[in-house]
Amino acid sequence: MTSDGFRPLDEKSLAEYIKATPALSSKLGGKLDHLQIKEVGDGNLNFVFIIVGSAGSLVVKQALPYIRCIGESWPMTKERAYFEAMALKEQGRLCPDHVPEVYHFDRDMSLIGMRYLEPPHIILRKGLIAGIEYPLLAEHISEYMAKTLFFTSLLYTTTTEHKRAVAEFCGNVEMCRLTEQVVFSDPYKVSQYNRWTSPYLDQDAEAVRQDNILKVEVSQLKSMFCERAQALIHGDLHTGSVMVTHDSTQVIDPEFAFYGPMGFDIGAFLGNLILAFFAQDGHASQANDRMSYKSWILRTIEETWSLFRKKFIALWDENKDGNGEAYLPPIYNNPDVWQLVQGKYMEDLLHDSLGFGAAKMIRRIVGVAHVEDFESITDASKRADCERRALNFAKMLMKERRTFASITDVASAVQKA
Amino acid sequence: MTSDGFRPLDEKSLAEYIKATPALSSKLGGKLDHLQIKEVGDGNLNFVFIIVGSAGSLVVKQALPYIRCIGESWPMTKERAYFEAMALKEQGRLCPDHVPEVYHFDRDMSLIGMRYLEPPHIILRKGLIAGIEYPLLAEHISEYMAKTLFFTSLLYTTTTEHKRAVAEFCGNVEMCRLTEQVVFSDPYKVSQYNRWTSPYLDQDAEAVRQDNILKVEVSQLKSMFCERAQALIHGDLHTGSVMVTHDSTQVIDPEFAFYGPMGFDIGAFLGNLILAFFAQDGHASQANDRMSYKSWILRTIEETWSLFRKKFIALWDENKDGNGEAYLPPIYNNPDVWQLVQGKYMEDLLHDSLGFGAAKMIRRIVGVAHVEDFESITDASKRADCERRALNFAKMLMKERRTFASITDVASAVQKA
Ligand SMILES: Nc1ncnc2c1ncn2[C@@H]1O[C@H](COP(=O)(O)OP(=O)(O)O)[C@@H](O)[C@H]1O
Ligand SMILES: Nc1ncnc2c1ncn2[C@@H]1O[C@H](COP(=O)(O)OP(=O)(O)O)[C@@H](O)[C@H]1O
Ligand SMILES: [Mg+2]
Ligand SMILES: [Mg+2]
Ligand SMILES: [Mg+2]
Ligand SMILES: [Mg+2]
Ligand SMILES: [Mg+2]
Repeated sequence: MTSDGFRPLDEKSLAEYIKATPALSSKLGGKLDHLQIKEVGDGNLNFVFIIVGSAGSLVVKQALPYIRCIGESWPMTKERAYFEAMALKEQGRLCPDHVPEVYHFDRDMSLIGMRYLEPPHIILRKGLIAGIEYPLLAEHISEYMAKTLFFTSLLYTTTTEHKRAVAEFCGNVEMCRLTEQVVFSDPYKVSQYNRWTSPYLDQDAEAVRQDNILKVEVSQLKSMFCERAQALIHGDLHTGSVMVTHDSTQVIDPEFAFYGPMGFDIGAFLGNLILAFFAQDGHASQANDRMSYKSWILRTIEETWSLFRKKFIALWDENKDGNGEAYLPPIYNNPDVWQLVQGKYMEDLLHDSLGFGAAKMIRRIVGVAHVEDFESITDASKRADCERRALNFAKMLMKERRTFASITDVASAVQKA
Repeated sequence: MTSDGFRPLDEKSLAEYIKATPALSSKLGGKLDHLQIKEVGDGNLNFVFIIVGSAGSLVVKQALPYIRCIGESWPMTKERAYFEAMALKEQGRLCPDHVPEVYHFDRDMSLIGMRYLEPPHIILRKGLIAGIEYPLLAEHISEYMAKTLFFTSLLYTTTTEHKRAVAEFCGNVEMCRLTEQVVFSDPYKVSQYNRWTSPYLDQDAEAVRQDNILKVEVSQLKSMFCERAQALIHGDLHTGSVMVTHDSTQVIDPEFAFYGPMGFDIGAFLGNLILAFFAQDGHASQANDRMSYKSWILRTIEETWSLFRKKFIALWDENKDGNGEAYLPPIYNNPDVWQLVQGKYMEDLLHDSLGFGAAKMIRRIVGVAHVEDFESITDASKRADCERRALNFAKMLMKERRTFASITDVASAVQKA
């Protein structure tokens, strides 16, 4: 144990920890001597244990003071667990249907106990690779995004609450810096961490590093990420942070949460769906050409934004006489002006989302952390073809994002790319 | 004395306070029994005392828990003095030539002791009304803005320092809320606090409250004010917060300081110069038609921005290999891309400044707090004519700000208005 009360747990010490922690042991039923404990973390950063007892189960996630997939050579504050716990609780309060319940948080141990999302829950990204359709995905994720973003924005909160919360989440600065580096910087320069499907994409990676217009655009997006405290964002809302079944959609892993631009979350999700789309040709087989699955992904992209837009505006309308001080009813006092401001807000948000989505796509192809959608395509040449199409689309999307008037135009462009 | 150690001072109790406070008494020479103390606050919010001793002088500013010009019916945190002191010290460190030195700060008493800016220093606004030219004003104020804004932005600081400072200044939220109300909200709605030169401007005030396009624009500016932590801004940089002589320019009164959009400061200054311009016809006499003075104001508007732009870019160039993480040299690694990003940054900043400047003009004509530039025009009909021209110009400027490619275009438009 270090002097701050922290010690990394393994299966054995975790069993002792649970026995000593009623908030956890009470979830498991009696017979605590026969717990099944398994470390399952397949994420990049942390350790995740599944614990099954005689009459219940739970998950324990622990942050270590470095990045798991890289090792102790890349230190990273374990305080990220604090912000993850804060965000999970807040997002769970705002959208309980789509966020696992937090049972316990231990700040000294950087340890969160939460609901185990039992099988058949799987990580959405794996479902997308397997070609599984999730009919409620757009409905659910749009609900999550609309509620978590709207209720933490100035459309709903007072400036007083907002600035208090902004200040608190400024503490999650190390995670923000990591995003700045791996999303907004490294892909656009030579970096020891970057990798790509070589030699196929050598020229493509080089082209990214020499694209002045793209660099101007990414600088704008980076500034927005660093400066604009629009809402409490998840901060890492890719398809690996969502667990799904046919009927259930659960958002986990908000350890990058802070007050940032809403478009960063929406873009992360949409951008990763677009990556999944471009990966499909790599997963096609004679038995399944994935054509109808590609259509489903496109429909899901469209519906996610359309439903988000609808739900977000509905929340705004319902709460317009609330405490939010951004658009006071005595000012925005006629239907014309109300439609004008809402239209402008949603148009800007779409464009922000497309820009951030494009940035998230690019970094997954030429940056440090790749996605299984492409990595699982074993034929490197085939993989490179898929990645190149995704990369070129993303570059175009970042540069031209302001010319897209609707999500339908985006989906058409993906289809034609 | 209240339980928190606060008590409002008058001339007599202040003398005792000074005697008990070496950081103050040491500035005054011996013979502390014969201090000249005079309350001179002509500002809207606080009490300001000038203290002259046998061999020195100083100013003491104290915040009371309400707004001075309105009274105890409008409570306002006296903690504003803490943020004013923090900002004065930081801005003084970054630009000592143009910020009075802080000798002493007492948080319990909300009291700041600082350098007395002795006569012939006067408030710039009064100089503008009197028709006095200040040949170094543009040079000095552009220096102040370039240094205070550049060095507190992400162009110079790390994300880590930036978020720490942002969080600290989130505490000045009551002052931010006051600005939100009086600058971005009240002028666009019916409010008991609004006033204007009635009946002359009744229709004009009404037109502001019915201008949907203007309301959309002001909503965007308000969001930027509330959400965008671009740099440590003064927050109230009108011509009443600047004291001048022929050779000296000193910026006082940063009690509204927080991390906000740079354009809010630049716009406040430029907008108030434009107000001074439109007031000149009301001050013209047979002896002095103020034509050449109007030209000087226009030149000062142009030079303020041009010099600011030049100095800001020079600081950026000089510090591009420093700790600032916004534009990493290995990414922005050729002269073309460097010029592109700087050009875009300064273009956006000009447009932000014009938008905020326009908002500051409008609120001084139809909002709660007016400016002496117009108030000192005793003939109400003449005053209303000046105000109407300023108001119409400001409305146009807010709506059309993105069409102005340079400050010269803005100055021409002012001249023609
Ligand atoms: N509440 C949970 N229920 C079931 N599995 C979970 C739960 N939380 C995490 N996991 C599993 O652990 C993996 C890593 O979790 P995650 O929170 O994404 O960690 P990291 O921050 O390291 O990415 C997930 O991909 C998922 O498979
Ligand atoms: N350091 C100073 N030296 C000389 N006069 C000062 C100084 N500080 C303030 N004053 C005078 O007091 C007035 C009010 O000060 P200010 O800081 O603007 O207070 P407020 O916050 O109430 O507007 C100024 O307009 C100026 O005349
Ligand atoms: Mg994860
Ligand atoms: Mg994670
Ligand atoms: Mg003042
Ligand atoms: Mg907003
Ligand atoms: Mg003041």
